[in-house]
Amino acid sequence: MTTQKLEIMKCTHKKQKPESSALEFGKYFTDHMFIMDYSEEKGWYSPRIIPYQPLTLDPAAMVFHYGQTVFEGLKAYRSEDGSVRLFRPEENFKRLNQSSDRLSIPPIDEAQMLAYLKELIRIDKDWIPTMPGTSLYIRPFVIATEPTLGVAPSRNYKFMIILSPVGAYYKEGINPIGIFVEDQYTRAAPGGTGTAKTAGNYCAAYKAQERATANKQAQVLWLDGMEKKYVEEVGSMNVFFKLNGEVHTPGLSGSILEGITRKSVIELLKSWDIPVFERRISIEEIVSASKSGTLEEVFGTGTAAVISPVGELLWKDHKIVVNNNETGALSKRLYTELTGIQTGEQKDPFGWTVRLEDEE
Amino acid sequence: MTTQKLEIMKCTHKKQKPESSALEFGKYFTDHMFIMDYSEEKGWYSPRIIPYQPLTLDPAAMVFHYGQTVFEGLKAYRSEDGSVRLFRPEENFKRLNQSSDRLSIPPIDEAQMLAYLKELIRIDKDWIPTMPGTSLYIRPFVIATEPTLGVAPSRNYKFMIILSPVGAYYKEGINPIGIFVEDQYTRAAPGGTGTAKTAGNYCAAYKAQERATANKQAQVLWLDGMEKKYVEEVGSMNVFFKLNGEVHTPGLSGSILEGITRKSVIELLKSWDIPVFERRISIEEIVSASKSGTLEEVFGTGTAAVISPVGELLWKDHKIVVNNNETGALSKRLYTELTGIQTGEQKDPFGWTVRLEDEE
Repeated sequence: MTTQKLEIMKCTHKKQKPESSALEFGKYFTDHMFIMDYSEEKGWYSPRIIPYQPLTLDPAAMVFHYGQTVFEGLKAYRSEDGSVRLFRPEENFKRLNQSSDRLSIPPIDEAQMLAYLKELIRIDKDWIPTMPGTSLYIRPFVIATEPTLGVAPSRNYKFMIILSPVGAYYKEGINPIGIFVEDQYTRAAPGGTGTAKTAGNYCAAYKAQERATANKQAQVLWLDGMEKKYVEEVGSMNVFFKLNGEVHTPGLSGSILEGITRKSVIELLKSWDIPVFERRISIEEIVSASKSGTLEEVFGTGTAAVISPVGELLWKDHKIVVNNNETGALSKRLYTELTGIQTGEQKDPFGWTVRLEDEE
Repeated sequence: MTTQKLEIMKCTHKKQKPESSALEFGKYFTDHMFIMDYSEEKGWYSPRIIPYQPLTLDPAAMVFHYGQTVFEGLKAYRSEDGSVRLFRPEENFKRLNQSSDRLSIPPIDEAQMLAYLKELIRIDKDWIPTMPGTSLYIRPFVIATEPTLGVAPSRNYKFMIILSPVGAYYKEGINPIGIFVEDQYTRAAPGGTGTAKTAGNYCAAYKAQERATANKQAQVLWLDGMEKKYVEEVGSMNVFFKLNGEVHTPGLSGSILEGITRKSVIELLKSWDIPVFERRISIEEIVSASKSGTLEEVFGTGTAAVISPVGELLWKDHKIVVNNNETGALSKRLYTELTGIQTGEQKDPFGWTVRLEDEE
């Protein structure tokens, strides 16, 4: 793939930025966005940064009808000294291409995507909030745009990146959530699209979330789609269990999203010499561990919350209280370490962070 | 729901209509479209027929990210005398609302939708082709439009109907197709979205279609998502087997789309006193029936092809030839009867067709 000249068209009027304290998730967007087109003849072409603006699409555009789309989510952090850091962005672009492969979408040059993203962030750098816990959420995504109703991969796409300043996930300190173990609805089955970050996986979960809310729980714990027996993931996070001093997380079964925070947590635990296992974990085993007193901590991992401690699990008639509904020591340590690395407050022995300034 | 005044804004310049012989599926669209908006405060509001035109949506519109969308597909036929018929349209709007329920989308008044559709077709009536086998394909769909990235049901939607004149499915007479029995990829699992007509189910199938094509077969036969043992559906059609004079089709397992042509075929067969059974059918059973000579016919049913005879099935090492790769007598009879009713060439003892003129 040849490097194409990036066209930059800046906005003439900048939007008013929301107060850091008023930020919500994914509600405000910055002044600019990145966009690039694809056709069978040209491949990916015409990369450009333009003022944030509506898309104009034919009502027959395939994304509306057959859902051929993939996305990513990552964050940029600005530290006190003004430096800007991304957390393992190359992992996100690698996963975007893996998702695209499952959805029959043409891949994009990963290094080039990162270069475009950096340029976009430089232009909208003033939008990155600095209050503790805040960040700039980055949403790269691809949509199928060919205006025809035949059920087949699209011959045209748009790749875009939009940016949204987001508030602290934990406004009043890190706190455990309750989760509802879903035993009716299915998130994903082997051979399906569960490992891909694609739109259809997310709307399919709304019904289960309704049930969780009706049962006074914050999120859903998904079981496997075949037997409803093995633990898969929490809401849109991966899940970890601390059992008798060891950490266990569901293995990549073919229907679980390969989280980048999940991967980082595993690497961190190994570096701390804490035993960590990726394997099949049945919900029955968790109930037993709770009864025998070996279930020490449960937490979710994901880009939004980083670490989300679980204080309670509700599965059928079983109500499991974890660590007295308090944030466990390991959850806290992981949260502090990971967010420290992400924001630049702590050293980064793994070389996970990418500083925007390093290449200016 | 109160009836709202339908606003009609006609186009000033009509597009040139394609030749009937040059029609493809879902490529050309008529001069007008129907659109209506939804907000939590107003419900569905502002129904209008306007010139066919691009949609303008925020790049953060939820449909691009979380796939909350449902659709339908049905056809209008124009007969020699100029009368226009719809085939069981109330079934489509009922199913649209069922799909919407699974996807947490607010329902639409079914009778009102049908009234809007009729008005739209009246305005674009000249677009309905009359050559044998041609029709006007109708695509009603709903998309989530709220511009925010939180993973939750949208608070805003658009409901639209677009129309596309389509050519004959069988240009050279009804002909059997070969199908590839997919044993790796999964279309749907119990508890998933398989019974809903939603975008994510369709793009998820592209990889399997690639494998079918690579194996020189026209379409995919899906097996159940749990054991890859039981037959579910063909491509985007339901599937029927004639075994020893009886007709068998997979029961509605919770992961199969409830086809309207499927339902009509079952009702037709019953009216002809041909035994028809809805039940679990394993692919092993079909292999055995082929060996013992009791597999007489296989056919798919759907809006596009109406009846699609299957001449060959490829499953692992088994190659099953059905009825000497020729269209069976029952497939032909069903095709003739159903298309006859749809176009008005035959009597409609079931009251399935809705004539536009009846209410003018």
